[in-house]
Amino acid sequence: MKNRLAIWAAMITISCVANAEYQQVIDVNADNSVTIRVAAPDAEAVTLYGFGDEPLAMVRDSTGSWSVTTPTMPDDMYIYYYEIDGVRTLDPANPYTVRDIGNVYNIAIVGGETARMYEVGDVAHGTVSQRWYDSPALSMQRRMTVYTPPGYETDTDRHYPVLYLLHGSGGDETAWNDLGRASIIMDNLIAAGQIEPMIVVMPNGNGRMAAAPGASSLGLYIPSGEHSRAATGTFEASIEDIMNYVDANYRTLQDKQHRAIAGLSMGGGHAWRISLAMPDTFDYIGLFSAAIRWNGTDIGDLDKSQYEQIELLKLADPKLYYIAIGKDDFLYDLNVDYRQLLDKYDMDYLYNETEGGHTWSNWRHYLLDFAPRLFK
Amino acid sequence: MKNRLAIWAAMITISCVANAEYQQVIDVNADNSVTIRVAAPDAEAVTLYGFGDEPLAMVRDSTGSWSVTTPTMPDDMYIYYYEIDGVRTLDPANPYTVRDIGNVYNIAIVGGETARMYEVGDVAHGTVSQRWYDSPALSMQRRMTVYTPPGYETDTDRHYPVLYLLHGSGGDETAWNDLGRASIIMDNLIAAGQIEPMIVVMPNGNGRMAAAPGASSLGLYIPSGEHSRAATGTFEASIEDIMNYVDANYRTLQDKQHRAIAGLSMGGGHAWRISLAMPDTFDYIGLFSAAIRWNGTDIGDLDKSQYEQIELLKLADPKLYYIAIGKDDFLYDLNVDYRQLLDKYDMDYLYNETEGGHTWSNWRHYLLDFAPRLFK
Repeated sequence: MKNRLAIWAAMITISCVANAEYQQVIDVNADNSVTIRVAAPDAEAVTLYGFGDEPLAMVRDSTGSWSVTTPTMPDDMYIYYYEIDGVRTLDPANPYTVRDIGNVYNIAIVGGETARMYEVGDVAHGTVSQRWYDSPALSMQRRMTVYTPPGYETDTDRHYPVLYLLHGSGGDETAWNDLGRASIIMDNLIAAGQIEPMIVVMPNGNGRMAAAPGASSLGLYIPSGEHSRAATGTFEASIEDIMNYVDANYRTLQDKQHRAIAGLSMGGGHAWRISLAMPDTFDYIGLFSAAIRWNGTDIGDLDKSQYEQIELLKLADPKLYYIAIGKDDFLYDLNVDYRQLLDKYDMDYLYNETEGGHTWSNWRHYLLDFAPRLFK
Repeated sequence: MKNRLAIWAAMITISCVANAEYQQVIDVNADNSVTIRVAAPDAEAVTLYGFGDEPLAMVRDSTGSWSVTTPTMPDDMYIYYYEIDGVRTLDPANPYTVRDIGNVYNIAIVGGETARMYEVGDVAHGTVSQRWYDSPALSMQRRMTVYTPPGYETDTDRHYPVLYLLHGSGGDETAWNDLGRASIIMDNLIAAGQIEPMIVVMPNGNGRMAAAPGASSLGLYIPSGEHSRAATGTFEASIEDIMNYVDANYRTLQDKQHRAIAGLSMGGGHAWRISLAMPDTFDYIGLFSAAIRWNGTDIGDLDKSQYEQIELLKLADPKLYYIAIGKDDFLYDLNVDYRQLLDKYDMDYLYNETEGGHTWSNWRHYLLDFAPRLFK
């Protein structure tokens, strides 16, 4: 047997053919503009969506290849698609896709310092698992995505802090990892020495869903916002089920100093309400484009117990209360109101106001900015 | 805090809106024909690929919706796509996709006894992980997919048998789970009491690849057969790295009686050669549409040591030597030759000859047939 394996090992060298070049799925030009091409000889109109706010009309050449060069793009991950003669379609040359609710997009990355954090690096990689847990509060088996950092499996005496990372309305337990590139970002931040190795728990934030569309016994149904919009007050009731499961199944550090919770949009609302209700549980709280009105109450309607909760949270003195939002976000004004309320209560927070709106581009940036502040 | 969580729990009932119906992505008719529709008002020709061997021309109605009803289809999982005016595209109404080398397909399931095994059931679910391990033989960090059965996390004293499940040329560590529905099949077989709970290890069988396209530091490259075709003798050299890692990181039963290896096509060739080289390691061996000539030697050219290996394997007397192939498979004749050789050596095997060819439909069937024979 040893002999046979030795022979195979020797054959590696012999059998290696010259690697074909690894041509990337899009052409990024020197100025970070992007040239996109698609062959559609019989089409009458081809439009590209996803590079910038406006669709880009593509131009046909004599061979039937349509192309367009975008303006200079910020380095970032992009999701895009075509419309060919009125039919939404994907790039036949790009097999990398991501689903957002009911639509599938192609993925592309336009290089640069930030975008490099979204690319799989030549670094040590953590483990990504899809796991099912029991939620007595929701009377359901439910699925979560869990990232454990490189070394988790080998450094078996070590216990780790935990970031609970919550998605928005329409998302599910796959959203932060697929659209948000969370595990890739974590791998890269750890390799760069910018963050503490941590476990990242990405549950499904819709209390009516067991798992992402297609991953539950509901079958391969056509997803819509209606299916994936979380009912008020359901997910939050299950947070203790989630934490109990994670603490029972992972080597976690189980104190406030080693727990963080953050979410985007609806998940920001979840993180907001959970951290108010459980002021002694999380020392790091992140509200990304947070739907602070999610309860149906806007700030002016906070009931007495919620004002009391803000006072209790202030007393609990979390190490980081982080609020990030884009200037164009439709939730911007609510976040202004909420910060004014926090100011009134003299509650400390760190505020990160950015360009842009309610976008994954911003949420990935917020994670890149937030994660290095944790557990230090 | 308890109060607040109780309030949330109470709100679940209040806030549950009537569930929208979960309309499935395709219409399966009473006779198991399938009606497919796509809106393409400006198209001149729309063709459907994937239901049956021949493309199906779709017909336009007055509203610009194109449709076709397939013949009665065997219950199975199908992967399909459209061609609209010469452009390959996906179903805009179906966000469930799977990649096979460089192409993306829509997924659909046509119900029936077999297809139900490919659907996520209302059953206990195992965990699916993407993990990286060190392969000294290949001087690389590489990724594998690992399925652990329901109960693995809670029944912490229990040790499990392991099935090493190998993909074909062009595949990667995602193939058996995505195209092969392996974790879903395992969940369903376990729930039906048809198989022993087992760990399933799905490594990347291409010795030159660290991980699936898009999941390594090679970036979002355009995959081709050239990239994903395994060199001879590379993967096999790493099998001990894989087994060492699995045994070190999972609660495995580490003897011949509790180890199985199976593969399809190239992976069948891998399983063939590994089981010959390591006759005392696996008691269950599955060759699905196996590329038995993969070494560049066809059966007539088996060198002396390989004949000796067959004798040694016969002496080792594995509990199951399983050979499955479809009548139309391009590897059929090689498998005939190999079975004649086994007959000459009076080596026992179980032979499953099916209709069809070199297809995932067959490989899922073979897994359904093979797994219940293991570890009993």
